[in-house]
This record gives sequence, C-alpha cells and structure tokens, in this order.
Amino acid sequence: MTSNQSTNNYQMWGGRFNGQPNVALMELNNSLPFDARLYADDLDASKAYAEALKRAGHLNDAECDKLVKSLELIRYDWIERLVKFLPSDEDVHTVNERMLVDLTGELGQRLHTGRSRNDQVATDMKLWLRKAIRETLGRLRLLINAIAKQAESHLGVLMPGYTHLQRAQPVQFSHWLLSHAFALREDCLRLGELRDRANVLPLGSGALAGNPLGIDRLWLAERLGFAAVTGNSMHAVGDRDFVVDFIYCASVVSLHLSRLAEDLILYSTKEFDFIRLDDAFTSGSSLMPQKKNPDSLELIRGISGLITSNLTGIMMTIKGTPSTYNKDLQFDKQYCFQAYDKLAQSLDVTVGVVQTMKVQREQLEAALSPDMLATDWAYYLVRKGVPFRQAHHHIGRVVALAEQRGVDITEVPLGELQQICAAFGADIASVADYGNNVQQYDVIGGTSTGSIAEQLRLLKKLDKELRQQS
Amino acid sequence: MTSNQSTNNYQMWGGRFNGQPNVALMELNNSLPFDARLYADDLDASKAYAEALKRAGHLNDAECDKLVKSLELIRYDWIERLVKFLPSDEDVHTVNERMLVDLTGELGQRLHTGRSRNDQVATDMKLWLRKAIRETLGRLRLLINAIAKQAESHLGVLMPGYTHLQRAQPVQFSHWLLSHAFALREDCLRLGELRDRANVLPLGSGALAGNPLGIDRLWLAERLGFAAVTGNSMHAVGDRDFVVDFIYCASVVSLHLSRLAEDLILYSTKEFDFIRLDDAFTSGSSLMPQKKNPDSLELIRGISGLITSNLTGIMMTIKGTPSTYNKDLQFDKQYCFQAYDKLAQSLDVTVGVVQTMKVQREQLEAALSPDMLATDWAYYLVRKGVPFRQAHHHIGRVVALAEQRGVDITEVPLGELQQICAAFGADIASVADYGNNVQQYDVIGGTSTGSIAEQLRLLKKLDKELRQQS
Amino acid sequence: MTSNQSTNNYQMWGGRFNGQPNVALMELNNSLPFDARLYADDLDASKAYAEALKRAGHLNDAECDKLVKSLELIRYDWIERLVKFLPSDEDVHTVNERMLVDLTGELGQRLHTGRSRNDQVATDMKLWLRKAIRETLGRLRLLINAIAKQAESHLGVLMPGYTHLQRAQPVQFSHWLLSHAFALREDCLRLGELRDRANVLPLGSGALAGNPLGIDRLWLAERLGFAAVTGNSMHAVGDRDFVVDFIYCASVVSLHLSRLAEDLILYSTKEFDFIRLDDAFTSGSSLMPQKKNPDSLELIRGISGLITSNLTGIMMTIKGTPSTYNKDLQFDKQYCFQAYDKLAQSLDVTVGVVQTMKVQREQLEAALSPDMLATDWAYYLVRKGVPFRQAHHHIGRVVALAEQRGVDITEVPLGELQQICAAFGADIASVADYGNNVQQYDVIGGTSTGSIAEQLRLLKKLDKELRQQS
Amino acid sequence: MTSNQSTNNYQMWGGRFNGQPNVALMELNNSLPFDARLYADDLDASKAYAEALKRAGHLNDAECDKLVKSLELIRYDWIERLVKFLPSDEDVHTVNERMLVDLTGELGQRLHTGRSRNDQVATDMKLWLRKAIRETLGRLRLLINAIAKQAESHLGVLMPGYTHLQRAQPVQFSHWLLSHAFALREDCLRLGELRDRANVLPLGSGALAGNPLGIDRLWLAERLGFAAVTGNSMHAVGDRDFVVDFIYCASVVSLHLSRLAEDLILYSTKEFDFIRLDDAFTSGSSLMPQKKNPDSLELIRGISGLITSNLTGIMMTIKGTPSTYNKDLQFDKQYCFQAYDKLAQSLDVTVGVVQTMKVQREQLEAALSPDMLATDWAYYLVRKGVPFRQAHHHIGRVVALAEQRGVDITEVPLGELQQICAAFGADIASVADYGNNVQQYDVIGGTSTGSIAEQLRLLKKLDKELRQQS
Repeated sequence: MTSNQSTNNYQMWGGRFNGQPNVALMELNNSLPFDARLYADDLDASKAYAEALKRAGHLNDAECDKLVKSLELIRYDWIERLVKFLPSDEDVHTVNERMLVDLTGELGQRLHTGRSRNDQVATDMKLWLRKAIRETLGRLRLLINAIAKQAESHLGVLMPGYTHLQRAQPVQFSHWLLSHAFALREDCLRLGELRDRANVLPLGSGALAGNPLGIDRLWLAERLGFAAVTGNSMHAVGDRDFVVDFIYCASVVSLHLSRLAEDLILYSTKEFDFIRLDDAFTSGSSLMPQKKNPDSLELIRGISGLITSNLTGIMMTIKGTPSTYNKDLQFDKQYCFQAYDKLAQSLDVTVGVVQTMKVQREQLEAALSPDMLATDWAYYLVRKGVPFRQAHHHIGRVVALAEQRGVDITEVPLGELQQICAAFGADIASVADYGNNVQQYDVIGGTSTGSIAEQLRLLKKLDKELRQQS
Repeated sequence: MTSNQSTNNYQMWGGRFNGQPNVALMELNNSLPFDARLYADDLDASKAYAEALKRAGHLNDAECDKLVKSLELIRYDWIERLVKFLPSDEDVHTVNERMLVDLTGELGQRLHTGRSRNDQVATDMKLWLRKAIRETLGRLRLLINAIAKQAESHLGVLMPGYTHLQRAQPVQFSHWLLSHAFALREDCLRLGELRDRANVLPLGSGALAGNPLGIDRLWLAERLGFAAVTGNSMHAVGDRDFVVDFIYCASVVSLHLSRLAEDLILYSTKEFDFIRLDDAFTSGSSLMPQKKNPDSLELIRGISGLITSNLTGIMMTIKGTPSTYNKDLQFDKQYCFQAYDKLAQSLDVTVGVVQTMKVQREQLEAALSPDMLATDWAYYLVRKGVPFRQAHHHIGRVVALAEQRGVDITEVPLGELQQICAAFGADIASVADYGNNVQQYDVIGGTSTGSIAEQLRLLKKLDKELRQQS
Repeated sequence: MTSNQSTNNYQMWGGRFNGQPNVALMELNNSLPFDARLYADDLDASKAYAEALKRAGHLNDAECDKLVKSLELIRYDWIERLVKFLPSDEDVHTVNERMLVDLTGELGQRLHTGRSRNDQVATDMKLWLRKAIRETLGRLRLLINAIAKQAESHLGVLMPGYTHLQRAQPVQFSHWLLSHAFALREDCLRLGELRDRANVLPLGSGALAGNPLGIDRLWLAERLGFAAVTGNSMHAVGDRDFVVDFIYCASVVSLHLSRLAEDLILYSTKEFDFIRLDDAFTSGSSLMPQKKNPDSLELIRGISGLITSNLTGIMMTIKGTPSTYNKDLQFDKQYCFQAYDKLAQSLDVTVGVVQTMKVQREQLEAALSPDMLATDWAYYLVRKGVPFRQAHHHIGRVVALAEQRGVDITEVPLGELQQICAAFGADIASVADYGNNVQQYDVIGGTSTGSIAEQLRLLKKLDKELRQQS
Repeated sequence: MTSNQSTNNYQMWGGRFNGQPNVALMELNNSLPFDARLYADDLDASKAYAEALKRAGHLNDAECDKLVKSLELIRYDWIERLVKFLPSDEDVHTVNERMLVDLTGELGQRLHTGRSRNDQVATDMKLWLRKAIRETLGRLRLLINAIAKQAESHLGVLMPGYTHLQRAQPVQFSHWLLSHAFALREDCLRLGELRDRANVLPLGSGALAGNPLGIDRLWLAERLGFAAVTGNSMHAVGDRDFVVDFIYCASVVSLHLSRLAEDLILYSTKEFDFIRLDDAFTSGSSLMPQKKNPDSLELIRGISGLITSNLTGIMMTIKGTPSTYNKDLQFDKQYCFQAYDKLAQSLDVTVGVVQTMKVQREQLEAALSPDMLATDWAYYLVRKGVPFRQAHHHIGRVVALAEQRGVDITEVPLGELQQICAAFGADIASVADYGNNVQQYDVIGGTSTGSIAEQLRLLKKLDKELRQQS
C-alpha cells in the first residue's frame, strides 16, 4: 500500500495536523455508538456514488465493479457482526472507508473524490429516514387496526362520554375508542407528507460548494430512489429540517399515545373499572401484595416527555448556528434515533395493551346516569318551541333542584318541571333511553351506529393505503 | 325580552349554579384578551350555522335572514371598535351571542341549538388559521424575493464559504445568500401542506357526541371553504394538532431566521465587515457614542427562543390530558397567536434588513486566501492520477508546511511540493483563480453562475405559485 | 433647554446616526409594554446613583437633591398614570430620563454619567425580583396555610392512598393533602436561597468595562439593600442567571400545582367523588345544562406548560450568545413577567379552591376495600416468622384466589388461607381495622395522627419564618 | 431454599399474577441499563436498613451481620463485573435482592420488610446525587482554575471588549476570560445549595404510608450522612425535585459553556484570530485538506441543547401526574444520568481547550481602534462641564463625521471638533492611550489591573473552599 496512513489508525484527514486528538474530545466527538446503524445506508450511497464517478469518467468499469463488490463484502461483515472499531474511527463513514481501503488499497482511496462527509451523512440520514417512516407507519397501522378491531367487537356498548373528566353525554364505547384512532390517522398523514417532502437528494453538494466533477445528480437521485435533488449546496449540507420534522411527527404521536394512556389508566382504576388490563401489561409492588399497576400505560404517558425532549433539544442545538455545516449538527442522530426507538417501543406496547384489554360492559353502562340526559331534555324543550338558550337554563334549574333534593332529574314531578318551564309535558318521560338517545347522533362523525360504521370504513381504507405503501 | 338572563350579565350557562364565579378564576379563565381576534371567524361560522339550521328545518327563511343580518351588524361594531366587554363575558363566543340576543331577542337564543363552544372554537380557530397561513406565506414570499433580488444584483461577487466558521472554499456571495432562501422555501412547502391537511371542518361535532339535528355537515364545509369534515366528534373537539402544527412551522421558520441573523451579525462585525446594515436597522448605546449595534438581528436571533417556547408549551400542556375537551386546551390561542405575531414581526424586520443592507464587495473578495485553494489543489493531483485520499493528505502536508513557514501555499517552491508528492508540476500555478474555480461547481445546486441562475429560476417559480394562492 | 434633543423625540443615542429607526424594528424592539412595570425600580436605582455621583464629587448637594426630588415627582406621575409614551421611547429607562430632562434640563443629562443601560437594567430587574420573590413566597404561604387548615379540620378522615392511581394502603385524608404542602415547602426553600444568592449589585459595571468615576459600589449596594457587588463587569452585564433561576423556581411550583390539580380533578369526578368543588371554581357548558366542570383546576394543570415554556424559551434564547450584553437578552423580561404573573394567578386560584372545597368523608371512607389490607396481612405473617418476601408472595396468592372467586380477602376461609401458608391463624381477623392500621405508621412522616401533628407543626414553623421575612 | 421463587426468575412480586409480563413491555420497563450504576448506593442503603431493622428488633445481631457482609460480597461482584443479569431482573434493586437471597436464603427475604422500592430508589438516587454534585464541583473547579491561570499569565494584554458583537471599549484579555469564570462560580454556589437542600433522607417512607416497624429514621439519616429526614411519606415517594434541580443546574452550566464556546469559536476564526486552538482540540475535513475546525467547541455549544433537553423532558414527564409514585417517574434516571455524563464530558473538553489555547497578543491589540475611545472622549467633555447626554451626542457626531470622511476620530482636526462642541481642547490628544484608559476602570469588577487582581483572589478563595468540600 502506497498510502502513508496505517489502517490501524485510519483518518480521513490529518496531513496538516501535528498533534493527536485529545482523548476527552475523542469521546465527546465519537458518533459511532449512534451512527453505526447507518452502515447500510452509507454503503448504498457509496455504491451509487461509485457508479456516478464511473459515469462521469473518473473510474473505469472494472474499478467501479470492484468498489461495488467490496462494499457488499463490508455489508456482510456488518451483518455478521465482524466489524471491529478502532480508537481512531470517528464515525461510520470512516469505518466503511477504512475497510474499503483494506480490501481495495488505492482504489478505495478514490471513492471520496468530490464527496464530503457533509453531503454523505445528509444522504445516509435521508435513506435511513425513509425506512424509519415506513416502519413507523407500519406500527401506526397495527395500532389503528387493534383499536378498530376492539371498536368493532364492542359496537353497541354504551358508556358516559366525558368532557373536563365530568360525565357529559352517553356515547358508544367504540366511538370513544375510535377517537384515538382518528388522532393516529392524522399522524399517518403527517408522516406520509414528510416522506415525500424530504425525498430530495443532497449528495453532490460536496462540503458546501457543490461538485466539480461532472457528477449526474439527477441520475444519482433516481438510482437511490429520490424524487428530486437539493437546490442549493450550502443549504443542503447545513439542513436538518427533515430530522427535526421527523422528531416532531414522533413527538405528536407520543402526545396522542399519552392521552390514550391517560384515558386507559383512569378507566382501569377501581373507581371507574371500565377496562381491565391483561396481567402481561401490568406489574406488581415490592411491598404491597395486592397491587396490579398499569406500568405499561404510565411508561407510555411518561415517555412522551422523553420523545418530545428530543425535539426541544435539536431545535435549541440548531438555533443561532451559522449557516452550512457546523459540528453542533452531529447531535441530530442522537435525538433522532432516540425519538424513533422510544416511539417504536411505545407503539408496540400500546398495541398489546389494546389487543388484550378486557372491556367491562356492565360497569360502563352502569355508569350512565340520568343527569346525562340533560342535553336531550333541552332539545325536547326546543322541539316544543323554547329557544335553546332558555331551554338550557330551564334544564339547568331542574338539575340544581334535583341535586338539592338528592334525586335524579327523572324523579322530579311533572308539576314542578312545569313550574320551571310550562312547555314540559308528560312525554318528557320518553326522553330516557340512553341507547335511543345515542342513535340520534347520526351526523358524520357522530356516535350513532351508522356513523361509527362509516368511521370503521374510513380506517379500513387507511389500512389498505398504508399496506400498499409499505 | 322574555329571557331570565339580563344582558348585563350574560352567560351561556348558569341555571344549575348557585354561586358566582370567583374573581381570581375569572381573571385566569378570561380568554377575551386572546380570542377577541377571532370575532370575524366566529361570526362567519355562526352565519353558516344559522343557514344550516334553516336547511335542517329549525329556522324559517325570515328567522335565518334576520340572524345573518344581525351577525353582520355585530361585525360592524367590532370593526368600528364599538364592542364593550362586560365582566361576565367569558370569551368571544359569549360576546357575540350576547350582542345577537340584544339585537334579536329570543331568536338569537336559538342559534346555539346543537352547537357547543367545543366545536365552535375549533371551527373559528381553523378559519383563523387559514388566513394566518396565507399571511405567513405572503411574508415568506417577500423575504425570499428580497433575498433573490440581492442575490441577483450581486452575481459574480466572490466570498469565502465557511463551514465550522472556518474558511472552506470560495463561493459566490449570491450562492451563500440564496442558501437561506432555500431554507425558507421548505417552510412554504410545510405551511402549504398544513393548510390543506387542516382544512377539515369540526363544526357539527357538538360538545363531543355529534349533532342530532339533521345538520348537513358536508354543505357546511363547502359553505365555509373546507375540503372535508372531521371523522369522529370526540376526536374533533379535543384535537389541537392543527394549532401545534402551525406553531411548529412557525418555530422552524424562526430557526431559519436565527441562522440568517447569526450570519449577518457576524458579517457585520468590524472583523468580517462583509455587509453594512442600514442605520434604520441598528441602534446606539446609551453610554458609548460610537456604537452601532445590529439590534434588529439580535432580536430575530433571540426571538426564535420565544417562538419555539410556544411549541414546547402547548405540547407540555396537551401531554397526558384525557381525551375530548379539557379546559387546559384553552391556552392554545395564547401560544398560537404569540407564535404568529412574533414571527410576522421577525419576517417584516428581516425583509427590511436584507433589502437595505450594503454588500461590501471589496472586503468579501479580500477575504479569499490561498489556503482556500487546497481542495482544488487536491483535485489537481487527482487529475494526475493520485487517489483522492492520498491527494488530500499531500495537500494537508503542504498547508502545514506553509503555515509553519508563515507563507501561503502558493509560495511553497515547486521542488518542495514535489518532495511531498511527485505528481506536482509547474501547471499547479494555474489553479489559483478563485473566479475560475467557482465556475467549476456547475452541478445542480453548485456555486457556478449557471447553477445560481437555475436557483433564481426556481425561486421565481415559487413566487408565482405563492402569488396565485393568496 | 440647551440640549439639541427635542423631548418630543428623546433618544439616549443618535449623534452618529443618519436615518430613523425602521418602524417594524421599533415595534419589535419596543420593550415598554414589558419593562414599564420596572419604573419604580428604575427610579430607586437612579436616586441611589445620583447620590453615588455626589459622593464621588460629580454632583454637588443641590444638584443631587434636585435630581432625587425630580425622580420622586416622576414616580408620582407613574402612580397617577400621567406618563405618556412617545413613539421614540425605547424603554422605561428612556422614558424616565426624558421626563427627568423635562424637569431639570441639563442637570438631568448628567445622571447617566458612567452608567449604561446594561448595568442599569440588570439592577432594576434585581430590585424587581426581590419583591417578586417576596410576593411569591407570600402566596405560597397562603396556600400552605389553606392546605394545613383543611388538613387540620379533617384529621381522622381515612381514604385510600394511591400509587400508580391504584388503591395502595389506607391513609389519612390530611396526610395526602399535606403531601402537597411539603412540595410547596421545598419551593419556599428554593426561592429563599435564590433571593439571597441573587442579592448582588450589578450597578457600577457600566456597559461592560466597569466604572471609571470613583463610584463607591459597596456604598451603592448597601444603599439599595444588596448584600454584595458583582465581581466582574463583563459578566455582570451579560448575566441573566437570576432571571432564569426565578423562572425555574416558578416552573417547579407550577409542576407541583399541576399534580395537586390532577389529584383534585380526579377526586371531584363522579367516579371518585372524594371532594366537591365550590360553584365559584367551576364553570358550566354552553350545550349541556347539567355540567359543572373543574375549569379552575384544568387551567392550573395546563398553565404549568405555559409557565415552563418561559424557562425553555429563555434558555434557548441565551444558548450560544456571545458573552456580555447582546440584544437577545431583552426578552428576559417578557419570559420573567409572564412566569411571575401566571404563577400568581395560579396560586390565588388554588388557594380559593382548597379553602372552599367540600370534603366528602363518607365517600372517602367507603372507598377503602379489604384488598388494601394486603400489606398489613403480610406484616402479620412476618410477625409469625415468615420472611417478608415469602409473606408477600403468600398474600399475593390469597388476593388472586379471592379475585378469582369474586370475594374479598377477608372472606377466604381460614382453612384455605392455611393451605397457602401454615402460619395463618384465627387472629388474622383482627387485621381488619383501617383506622387502627393507619395509626401503626407512626414514624416521622407517616400517616399516624401523631406524625401528622408533627407535620402541621413544621408547617406552622414555616409560616412563622415566612411572615418574619416579608 | 424454602421459597417458591426460583432465583432463575426472581421477582419482587407476582403471587397474584397469572400471566408473564409482555416482552415489549419488559423492554420498555427495564431500567437496568440506567439504574445499574446505582448498585453501590443501593447496597449502602440496604446495609443501613439492615442495621435499622436490627435496632428495631426485627433482626438479631448475627442475622444483621450476615446481611451486611453478604451485601459487601455483592459489591465485590459488581466491581469485578461478575454480575449477570437475568431476563426477569427489573432493576438494580431486584438484582441486588436476588443475589442476596442466593447468598443468604430466607434471611435475604427479610431485608425488604417495611421498605418499598419507592423509598429505596429515592434514597439511592440521593446518595448518587451527592457524589455527582461533588464530582461536578470538582470539574468546575478545574475549569475555573484553568481560566484563572490563563488570565493570570496574560495580565496586561489588551483587546476590544464587545457588546452586541461590536467593538465597545478596550478591556484586558484577562478581564474577558475571567468573566466566564464568574459565571461558573455562580454554578458552584447553585450546586452547593442544592447539595445541602436535597440532603434529606426519604428511606422509611415505605410505599407511601410510612413505616410501621419502629424504624429510627433519624438514626438512619445520620448513618447515611443525611442532615434530616423527609417530612411526609406520600410526598417523599413521589418527589423528584432533587433530580430536576440537578438537571437544571447542569443545564445552566451548559449554557455558560455554550457562551464561552461561542466566544472562542469566533475568536479562533481567521477574521478575529485572537486565539489559536491546539491541534488536539480541532478536527479536519474529509474533503478540504486545509481545514482545522473547532469541533470541540462546536460540540460544547451544541450539547447545551442536549443537556437542557433533559430538563424539558423531565418537567414534561412530571407535569400533571397524580401525587405519590407513578411509573412515569422512572425516566428520572435516564434524564439525570445523561445530563451528568454529557456535562462531565463537556467540562473535561473545555478544560483542555482553555489550558492549551494560544493567545494571540499581537492580533488582540491590533484590533483596538480609535472609535473605541469614544466613551472616554465623552468623559473628557464631561470633565469640562458638558452634561453627559450632550457629550454623548457630540462624540456621536464626531464619529459620524470621521466615518463619512473615512478617517479615525483622532484624525479630525481640533477646529472641526470645536465646531461640534466648544469644550474640545488640545488636551483631547491625551485621551488616546488604550492602556491608560483601561486602568481608569478601577472600580470593583472593573478592567483595571487592580480589579483583576481582586477577581483572581476571589477565585482562589473559591478554589480553596471547593477543595475543602471534596
């Protein structure tokens, strides 16, 4: 080998340096624990770049072929866990290039011509992100399906709908459960848009000024599955919007999961007792033998803080940095991978919780109480010609009267009702069936059985779309 | 007036309550200082709802007509600043309904039939958001155009391109400036997608269960310019994703502005002196007579913390709340309006700064130094057959040697160059023209004049698209 | 007036400027809406500075006297709301100096000698902060007292203690309620330490280099009630740690309030029904006549996101700014005042909620269930010689058996208990009195009546200490 | 062994459970990767608890002795890395108890009597925190000393002091550098106060209700080096303020480091060239051979976002959780350890950067320019009787005039100066010596040599205090 660089101490730079890097700095600087997972993306991008160099006349067919095959050999080493890191390995790019030079000598030293780690890592991250989005969409799909399935099997089960955590109006259990699926559906849209928006190739931007070697970036983009190429090289090497966007999307999913978890934690208390969690998703206490705690859901609720902290972190890290590449950007991977991994775990656990939870139909329906009829009683008066705001006020007085007496509103005698509002008639007694009540809400998105069927149809359509994309 | 509610103390509820709200709570609860700006959206949504009630047979033509006209009268009062708030006014919805009842008596008390403030406020916010996005896109367009214009008028001006704030490679001033426009272009895409994704009508979701009055939601959506209706009423009343999304988009814009501001602050120091800010965008010191400070840019850099804090805030507020509507969500407006307003101010100021700044061509070009030729020297060796990684190393040694001697690399004698690498020839002297150098980066997104012309074309296309949308 | 500056357009600077400030910038830059509330602190600091100038020989007695009296006249104008802002007023310092020059002519123009707005505003903020901490401590004291009073009046009321929101062990209602007071007690300690740590005078640091006029900073510090002076002028003018610290302390208080609010929201649901909120701290629904919503508590829970967002914001704003003063720091006031104001509102409302809430003794005690005896049953076995971990396991099996049968653990026949563990005897029946059970936890901090009495004593001691400080 | 629990599958609970934990949940729940580092603290606390059980009569001398010795054996296994984790190991407490039961059988099963993991983990964390604070203070001390040493060796070197990144007034290089030490000094105070405030023992709080076994908590506190015991058990088990406080302190340190890093990044640009970083703290480029990038400082600047994200995260996680222990709190360790570790790395690297950087005296002093005399010129006029505000204005006009002419203010002829202000005399020429100028700022905290000497004295005093504490 003619290079003056020993492969025991391979660096991509160093000619102009006298001293060795400081040990504390090497530790802080070392991104391998994070970026090693980009190895396959790095190899893919390198293969395509080798071909682009050939197309531009900088490598001949044999050279290109050898590089491509060697890169495949390196992939094998990664898969078989045969790759050993050296102290001088700064990052996954260094490792891959070092191994390539080991395999191919001088030839390997030609691959980086016109490329910089700046455009290389941006490209690797985008390749990784594409898969990460697909995986996340797959997990979201499973959760939406688990919700839809539970909703479908419990059609007709009634429960109190809550606002402000106070009983509001009777709804179907399925309607409540599906409300969470509709939040997750938004997440799918958001991620799908990001996938397309970010699918733009940075490779060919060099360190900042572009590429002077006649590389065909449009060909490269097509080769790597990108829909377009970035428009300004100085922007491309310093841009991490796509990472921030992904962490944002993950954070919003985690917020949705935190709200679902909160509902389920409440509903699995002794006081609500609307659902029972499967043993597999609870834990016990080291001190109190009777405890069965919803640890799974508490972790999901709490982890939204952890996932979202990556968003705050990356935004704070980026804020106020000069344009183009600055080393601060290196933390993007740490933020991004943590958000991805923790979200994946959360989604997996949530799927399990939803699939295995036992719905307590009896307790759900026992929790319906006559005060929840108040809105329908107001509509009763409206149908008798009373303006809604007055009807609302009259029923409010009925509720207050009943509460004062310690009785249900259905127990207030008609005569007294009529003292509050003359429009009350004996037919008020008919507004007392929760099930009938619920069916009146047959508008799109409402809690009637027909409306819920339509919701299920929408979610099945989404399932189909997501399946086709993955 | 037949109502038992005095308009001096109008509340939408209260029949069942004995006591008055606590004064400290009223202060904390009062959202009028924030939501009053939704008055027009609230009136628009109410007009449409009145018509929907008519279409469903709950109002006759004359009644509907009177409501619609009265709502227009109320709009006039707002515009003329004639609206007086009462202590009992909880929010803009209460104020509008109170005034409507003042104008129309019992008829006005019929408007809220089947509607809740929960679906009402979500609808108002979405109407507001649509305009807010249009305004923000308009401001982004102005800034992109200001950048493009400066870039166009300074084509051919060279400067050092920086990475890590160290001189890297020569680039065109226009290339650097346009890199910021390309970041803002992403913002336009992001906001445009949000505008479409969020354009889904919540009205008709009631408090949580839907609407039982035969309201035609699809008609309502069309009437109010929405592309679709929400799919689950319990989701719709507790969903603030569209607000979070907007604050996120605003935060990312503010990050981009903070990076532009950082560049400009640096470039306007005495040490760089690449640009001079117009007096109108600087301030003086109360103590030091000679100071001219880039306050405008420091405020823009700092305000990204303020704008982003609204994102952190709303996400923390939402985290772990039970599903459907909880009062915590009321803070959405405070977060959203602050993000919008501060971003608007930042964009306005940035436009002014960019339009008026003076580009110091002489200083920009004087800052180019021979060490910045290093990459091109490496390519020189590559063209002589040296593998890039070796070429990189050789040039690194040349740089170190020159630095040690205190000379430029162009001053190292050929003989010594050849001792480092035999491939050096006398023709190395020709790799010394920064201008020529820059033109070699003629790949898409590169810093050659042709590439920059293409960038300007893309931005003009964007300008045209944005114009058509507004 | 001999000055060439018209008081219609007073600026502290401008000699070297040609153009007028840009209107958009003036809007962004204008801190008067925020810093006007510092007027009194600014006047106090100016009075002291005038005296310091006199002591250093830069003003004679009559001049100093006139300045001091004029500053008092200006204070009167502020109190009487007679101060009119001009478009050119940048901040409260400009306003006060402008009015002083109006009153005293050239004399007023001498006050700023050796001072900069940089050390001036830091001093004003510290004076303000001292009062803000005192006020906050006062409000914390009221809340702790309200909690202690409710705890004291409900001594002996039992309830289920929860971990993971699952019933854990019986505790006293007072013990639970006091747990929140102990969190707030930490807040008092934290704020008290900040008050002392921050009580260090920046005045005399000038713009950044210090003061060259022989000002006696130690005298100034004593005059303004500071315990010491800052040690390095470049640090002093760029330091906002004391603001960040205060916002942090406020955020932690708000977290504590959010947890109290969450408990109270849960406990006031129909399902728990442990407390009833006073009408004054609830609101109704515009649609559902029966609703009584815990808006006060939801706002308190949600506002912790808003208060904490100021912490994230100021930290992000400060991050990466160069040392000494940069205009970015101006946002400190906006963050700080919002955190202070919102916390004050939250504390006021929480005091009211706690004072007026009705404790539902019957429901609290009815919620105790035999499974909550499990830990004491384990201790029963321990006393019979069974190792705790085995005892825990045996009782766990008893609980599982009872659950399977749908009975309470107290209903499992002795014979079957003995099959699980031979150590069970007939005396297990005696471990069944929740009240007796609770009294066994008589360690410091435990839930026995004696332990609670000690807790109340500690809080009364704190009350006394806080009273003495204010 | 008489237990029915195999040590191959040791759990602290499980008697009442039928199913096994779900695998995805186990992964999410497993805190061993984080809390294993608490092993020694856990053993220490367990030893003390065994003794407390003995003192309360629950163990005899021999039993206690055996437990204590076995716990020491387990410590040995940890140190020697002999501990193997099992899939069923939930956390470090389970591992330690499992190994203890392996060593001592039934006896080990008695240790947890009256204790819960809730009070156990809070105690472990506090023991860990005490050491973490000591270590952090040690690192801060090293950095302050490194700064002080550089400041001391460069006394007398002048430079431009900047505000708004614009040249403001001449200062000493040492004065600027020490300003960063004074920020770090605040950090030491803050951490010292936290150490004392948090030094309160939670052990003896049980799961939430306290301890019913006659444990002497005051003795335990003394035994473990705590100054006091927690006052309310329900508060103690759900309190993580001490963790949040530590992360906050770490975040503020990281902000200080980010500002120092920003200064140093700027000062090591070619344009400023005030300092040169040692090769050991820079990196090169993969593409551009001449590059020497301040990666160390960029990482330190960027990492403040990462450290601070832990603060945002833990606060968001805690927000709105019910009181006492909820599983969400488990994330405290992840946040805390990351903040600690990353801060330690940052401090280590910063120490190295400061110790090895080369101060460019010549360039620093060459950057002083006559416009920086403006403030002193204003003082010159003040000494001639001109009111400061007028003097400021006059000098401003001189600066504008000079700038217009492209000359220095010292080059404006006296006659023209006198046209601007009659008080100018020939002696203005004497106000031209930067060195003399700097010495006038001899107030406490000023930039005169005497003031700097006093600053160094203060820092040496701090060094001594910190040495004594560690």
